[in-house]
Amino acid sequence: MTKTNWGALAQHWLDRLAACSEPGPGVTRLPFTPEHRAALGVLTELMEQAGLAVHLDAAGTLIGRQDGPEGAPALLMGSHQDSVREGGAYDGIMGVVLPVLALMKLRQDGVALPFAVEVLAFADEEGVRFPTALMGPRALAGTFDMAALDLRDRDGISLRRAMEDFGLNPDALPALKRRRAQVLGWIEIHLEQGPVLEAAAQDIGIVTSICGIERHMITLTGTAAHAGTMPMHLRRDALAGAAELTLAAETLARETGGLLATVGALQVRPGVVNAVPGEVALTLEIRAPDDAMRERAGGALTQAAHDIANRRGLRLDITRTYAQPATPCSAQIIERLSKSVEAGNREAPQHMASGATHDTSAMAGLCPVGMLFTACRDGISHHPDEDVPVAAMSSGIRALEACLRQFQ
Amino acid sequence: MTKTNWGALAQHWLDRLAACSEPGPGVTRLPFTPEHRAALGVLTELMEQAGLAVHLDAAGTLIGRQDGPEGAPALLMGSHQDSVREGGAYDGIMGVVLPVLALMKLRQDGVALPFAVEVLAFADEEGVRFPTALMGPRALAGTFDMAALDLRDRDGISLRRAMEDFGLNPDALPALKRRRAQVLGWIEIHLEQGPVLEAAAQDIGIVTSICGIERHMITLTGTAAHAGTMPMHLRRDALAGAAELTLAAETLARETGGLLATVGALQVRPGVVNAVPGEVALTLEIRAPDDAMRERAGGALTQAAHDIANRRGLRLDITRTYAQPATPCSAQIIERLSKSVEAGNREAPQHMASGATHDTSAMAGLCPVGMLFTACRDGISHHPDEDVPVAAMSSGIRALEACLRQFQ
Repeated sequence: MTKTNWGALAQHWLDRLAACSEPGPGVTRLPFTPEHRAALGVLTELMEQAGLAVHLDAAGTLIGRQDGPEGAPALLMGSHQDSVREGGAYDGIMGVVLPVLALMKLRQDGVALPFAVEVLAFADEEGVRFPTALMGPRALAGTFDMAALDLRDRDGISLRRAMEDFGLNPDALPALKRRRAQVLGWIEIHLEQGPVLEAAAQDIGIVTSICGIERHMITLTGTAAHAGTMPMHLRRDALAGAAELTLAAETLARETGGLLATVGALQVRPGVVNAVPGEVALTLEIRAPDDAMRERAGGALTQAAHDIANRRGLRLDITRTYAQPATPCSAQIIERLSKSVEAGNREAPQHMASGATHDTSAMAGLCPVGMLFTACRDGISHHPDEDVPVAAMSSGIRALEACLRQFQ
Repeated sequence: MTKTNWGALAQHWLDRLAACSEPGPGVTRLPFTPEHRAALGVLTELMEQAGLAVHLDAAGTLIGRQDGPEGAPALLMGSHQDSVREGGAYDGIMGVVLPVLALMKLRQDGVALPFAVEVLAFADEEGVRFPTALMGPRALAGTFDMAALDLRDRDGISLRRAMEDFGLNPDALPALKRRRAQVLGWIEIHLEQGPVLEAAAQDIGIVTSICGIERHMITLTGTAAHAGTMPMHLRRDALAGAAELTLAAETLARETGGLLATVGALQVRPGVVNAVPGEVALTLEIRAPDDAMRERAGGALTQAAHDIANRRGLRLDITRTYAQPATPCSAQIIERLSKSVEAGNREAPQHMASGATHDTSAMAGLCPVGMLFTACRDGISHHPDEDVPVAAMSSGIRALEACLRQFQ
């Protein structure tokens, strides 16, 4: 009997799933579409090969279940089936395929687990089609806001209508809420979408926390002036002030381990070669693995903005437009995942925060959560060139299998 | 006999001239238009009241001449009649009215000058209607490029056609060139268009030089990345590099007397809240009263841009897109103007560079030049709120009169 190359097998299924896409570069698979339907067909085939009992819940989550002993609680695993427009073949969907293959391997090895396992393929994590996301895990956690059913896509179709056309009953969503006692925990495996693991030459990393995020909209207003007639010492240059704030944010984040701070958008008025800028509008985004760190950074940079504005005679308008708390992963699950990765790799795995939001963020409303990252080539994601090396997927399956063997 | 308030008289004529405007806020008076024609009528009336012989030359320059002794050379004075769109009532045109009133005052006092004086109202200094400007003074200096006659306004009308429709003969432009020996010099009075004199509580300043200008188009290219998944130490953030360069330009100019440096336009790509900026395009403008200072600053900031790009792993593209040398004023005329202002004001006048280009820049191709600035309220110019206090205009007329009395 040939030894199975589990990473290559994962690649085979991911190639089939990548074909479930709108035409064009990369993968475009939005929720409640024919492409979603096609992907559910492939996933059902895979899950059934692994001996799982498959059903689609009212949120459009495909669930493959392996029962445990009578009345035993379930460990939930999975990720999302959808992609961004012209995205890659791994983001989300790889996190469905790998745990199914881990269960298939355990079944081949004749291992019977003392608990049930469910692998979930959520319909919508990216939020590309509708201005909402994470409906699947929120329904399980009982945190889904039914008002979101009225939100519409760009063709004017409501989420409710799209679900109904897909054969789902949105009114059954509240009934999806799981009882905490029947859930052991949640584990997701996802590509890193960044360059850290590749730079560290590691296949798998352990996520310790999903960063909280806050965003500020900042306007600095000075005085637009003729660049030839306004002397330097009388200028109230909004762009020079914005430049100071941009560097203050970068410096604070560089000096604070785990903190990310980004000035991503910046507009200058009047924005012509021979005028001192009179107004600059910019965005400041702060991400941190714990909320106290993020709040401190937000406070420090708000104070820095006030100081810069005062010193330069600028008016400052600053509004925090968004704040989302961090999701710490379960210490127990982190420890189990670490041991599982270490057992396979014979080296201590990288521990890291996730700067991006995932299904895990919403699942934390239900139960203890844990998350693995796989390395991804050149840190590229949300792009047709997205790629996870086959060896990293093999390592991922091995780690999930080891974790399942020693869970509970 | 009531003592004439010369500043108030200037205001009276400027009010009449401000009415020669397209409808709308402020003054809009473009060259070779019915508004230009109307202004020439008012200026002719004023010049004739001052005893000047008036004619319109082939460039559309209205010239009021007071003869001197047989064969004596002429001192030329004046400025431009045209405005920007929705501009003010003083920019340019005040520099025609004040020297005419100075001559009127000398005539009332029975002073006969030992030289001729001509007051010139050039057609087009702002360059708003056609993508060229300064035709009037360039024709006198013999530096006008006849190819500019083919340039068109936004209605497709060529400069040649507009001039012909105005009753002018563009083919006679080369014949306007003055013989150097017949010109004593050129003096222009203009509002400062900046806040320096007002801040110093002075009515009149002496311009020592018209700044040279150079402009650079700069692109910094890093790597656009997800603001959540790209850690700080691996970022190649184009905006952070641009922020450093913006502050380097400001610091150099603040530390170098007379130097002006401005980052006026700046665009960020992709320019969204959750992406590390991958590319920034910006403009850098440098103005200095002497060319060596400007060249040194251009070199230093180009080097700074290279250093920043190298340190941050950014690609730098930098192109000097424009360079215009400085126009130093005549030391002799500066001295005469200084004495004239001091005589009127009983205080040493402010000496300053002009950051903006003026008709004087082109007249320097013909003869020694000098220039006075009047204070302007709040530094506002090119705007309906543009305002020169009546007292400053009185001081201007007094200074011009004193200068005329002691010229030669």
